[in-house]
Amino acid sequence: MKSKFIVIEGLEGAGKTTARDAVVAVLHEQGINDVVFTREPGGTPLAEQLRVLVKQGIDGEQVTDKAELLMLYAARVQLVENVIKPALARGAWVVGDRHDLSSQAYQGGGRGLDTGLMSTLREAVLGNFRPDLTLYLDVTPEIGLQRARARGELDRIEQESLRFFERTRERYLALAQADPSIITIDATQDIVNVTASLKRVLQQWLAGQSQ
Amino acid sequence: MKSKFIVIEGLEGAGKTTARDAVVAVLHEQGINDVVFTREPGGTPLAEQLRVLVKQGIDGEQVTDKAELLMLYAARVQLVENVIKPALARGAWVVGDRHDLSSQAYQGGGRGLDTGLMSTLREAVLGNFRPDLTLYLDVTPEIGLQRARARGELDRIEQESLRFFERTRERYLALAQADPSIITIDATQDIVNVTASLKRVLQQWLAGQSQ
Repeated sequence: MKSKFIVIEGLEGAGKTTARDAVVAVLHEQGINDVVFTREPGGTPLAEQLRVLVKQGIDGEQVTDKAELLMLYAARVQLVENVIKPALARGAWVVGDRHDLSSQAYQGGGRGLDTGLMSTLREAVLGNFRPDLTLYLDVTPEIGLQRARARGELDRIEQESLRFFERTRERYLALAQADPSIITIDATQDIVNVTASLKRVLQQWLAGQSQ
Repeated sequence: MKSKFIVIEGLEGAGKTTARDAVVAVLHEQGINDVVFTREPGGTPLAEQLRVLVKQGIDGEQVTDKAELLMLYAARVQLVENVIKPALARGAWVVGDRHDLSSQAYQGGGRGLDTGLMSTLREAVLGNFRPDLTLYLDVTPEIGLQRARARGELDRIEQESLRFFERTRERYLALAQADPSIITIDATQDIVNVTASLKRVLQQWLAGQSQ
């Protein structure tokens, strides 16, 4: 099977790390062992430095919504060109913790940035590069943030208001509904059931790809 | 007189720092003493961190042209929103060492990035915000780089090929010719003459503004 780029998306506390392990387990069952992990923002030395700037900001300086978006895309193009495309080209599979859909949901939905700007930027920076499959773990902000909080201190973005995350989730759901390459998984279930749902979805998708 | 945003542009070694001092001297003659200096990329704590990433890059990682452009615009929007606009609003004049024209010339001309992408990004990020006056110090790359080299070690961008700077200069000249708010000054002359030309140009421009 030709190598694929599979992305895991969702709010803070949706269970993306557990989902990643489940994706890898399913790929291994299929004999796919050359798997590259990425996370966004980050995944290259430069992109990781941008991640710190985006997530921590600078004491006393307002990070404008546009600068946040531009830094995210700068990090993303470094990751896509220097890591993801070369990995796919040599036949590795790539499993990404977040990708472009996060910007669409957080900056487009949460921050309310103009959708024209968002799509222009995506087109200009990424062209027609897209994940083959996105697994969106849907969770309410209440549940997600509760889990994220239990895990430790919240970063600059995780400290946004509940309403911000509600707008982000609404955008995730709307985009997932409009795009057949995004599969929504109910991540409010307990973890055993989420993992089982995810594995079943992925196995079905892989079966459809191998013909 | 309403406060203005005056930008000094040109290749490495064009004499921008000397020009800045001359601009300030002329403003002082006119009784304008509240002057804010900015430089790009940079001028806010976050923008200065982006400056380091753009100018030094990361050892062993290729900085893509698009990431470079996006980081420059992220730095620029921080500077415009957090420094330049507030300064102008309180009545200060702003003198900038480089602004958007540098991206048009270096990334558009030098790197050959698509002009559609360039203008879309400018429009999306800056809207209709523009300098009131740009003083473009025109110098050949040979002379400019010789001066820059005499000053010390060259950064990542200053190490580009002569052809890169020729393309950058060509774009500077073309943009200056098309835009009446950009005045070209021959900066290959000796420094006394460059300063005299610049002061004369600025005095004339200010006289035209005060009516």
